[in-house]
Amino acid sequence: MVTLPEDEAAHLVRVLRLKRGDAVRVFDGRGHEWRAEVAETGKKGATLRLLRRVTAAAEGGVPITLAMAVLKSDKMDDVVRDAVMLGAAGLIPLITERTEVSRGTVERGRRTERWQRVAVASAKQCGRAVVPAIAEAAVFADWIVRPAGEPLIILVEPGAEVMMLPIRRLMRPARATIAIGPEGGWTPGEIAAAAKAGAAPITLGALTLRADAAPTVALAAFRTIWEDF
Amino acid sequence: MVTLPEDEAAHLVRVLRLKRGDAVRVFDGRGHEWRAEVAETGKKGATLRLLRRVTAAAEGGVPITLAMAVLKSDKMDDVVRDAVMLGAAGLIPLITERTEVSRGTVERGRRTERWQRVAVASAKQCGRAVVPAIAEAAVFADWIVRPAGEPLIILVEPGAEVMMLPIRRLMRPARATIAIGPEGGWTPGEIAAAAKAGAAPITLGALTLRADAAPTVALAAFRTIWEDF
Repeated sequence: MVTLPEDEAAHLVRVLRLKRGDAVRVFDGRGHEWRAEVAETGKKGATLRLLRRVTAAAEGGVPITLAMAVLKSDKMDDVVRDAVMLGAAGLIPLITERTEVSRGTVERGRRTERWQRVAVASAKQCGRAVVPAIAEAAVFADWIVRPAGEPLIILVEPGAEVMMLPIRRLMRPARATIAIGPEGGWTPGEIAAAAKAGAAPITLGALTLRADAAPTVALAAFRTIWEDF
Repeated sequence: MVTLPEDEAAHLVRVLRLKRGDAVRVFDGRGHEWRAEVAETGKKGATLRLLRRVTAAAEGGVPITLAMAVLKSDKMDDVVRDAVMLGAAGLIPLITERTEVSRGTVERGRRTERWQRVAVASAKQCGRAVVPAIAEAAVFADWIVRPAGEPLIILVEPGAEVMMLPIRRLMRPARATIAIGPEGGWTPGEIAAAAKAGAAPITLGALTLRADAAPTVALAAFRTIWEDF
């Protein structure tokens, strides 16, 4: 028997309007999924009876963390939603020089908690049994000088004056982090700091990608070359 | 000297507030791009003086046409916008069995004209000198039986009962069309009709992609395996 968290119980009772005996699937956010049935619902919550463990959707072969400059308003919600759908292993919100949202705003607005809720909703929608963790927002200039301990890739604009490799030339790593800039792009200083930290600069075609679409395109491209698709 | 179309002239004068002598870049929607300067603006329009032909952003090596089930409301606008940004060579809106928008609604609402305007705006935003044509909406059942004359790929959901290949096993074609279904997915009959027409069924990972995000993911994946990225 498992007791659902309060918000999931409310969703089950008030939105889905499920009753005792109804069949559901439930996951723990760490890759485990079960068939279950509703055992009890009430004002205080909902309890499920687990019936049978099922095989959850496979995670990607190369865990990819998305380090993403915070975008304005709802756009960051969309980025989180789509990154979860594309299998991102984790998300690090970045405050960059051209980010139009300050770290204070992110912290006062409890954005990280909000994005974590968006991640849970997206996992439910796309059938993923893992909910990636959303880290606290980091300032890019501080973050980039810390050794990541894993290969770092930075997406730059097609016109950037930096040596780039076609992405299919990148060796398949055990895991990787991809950094993507805000609407106004990276500053030359940020690109230089990333290069100094050993990041591989890449571009994705000759067209300028919208900042909110870039994570989807990048994650899809890397899952393709690293053979998840 | 070139005279801008009325809506582009209005954009230049009223939104961008450019004046005589200001520098612009201009493209013809068929792959040609120039540096130019504003020669004259007035109530009737705007004229540009072409200064120098520039090399436009390269188109993809494999032209990919997106045959996309019409989605509800603004979502189809987003699909058109992102497909242009990802280099789609053309777009065919499809009316499928589970499409929630009728062909009559599409035609009465002049949606094709609207989507064509979205395509122009997206080309301007992403720096693409080619504006892909938006075809008139077609009924899937009629469209799928006509010989396409080029390889056809159909994106199906992870659970579909059909033999699928990893996309990296698909040979690089001279050109291709990718068909993607609506929010409710394809019917089994539609998948069977596509198979009969020789379409290759593919999936993109084990997670369920939102219908409005699927074209972006599919175009990114194919541009990756066909080496544009």
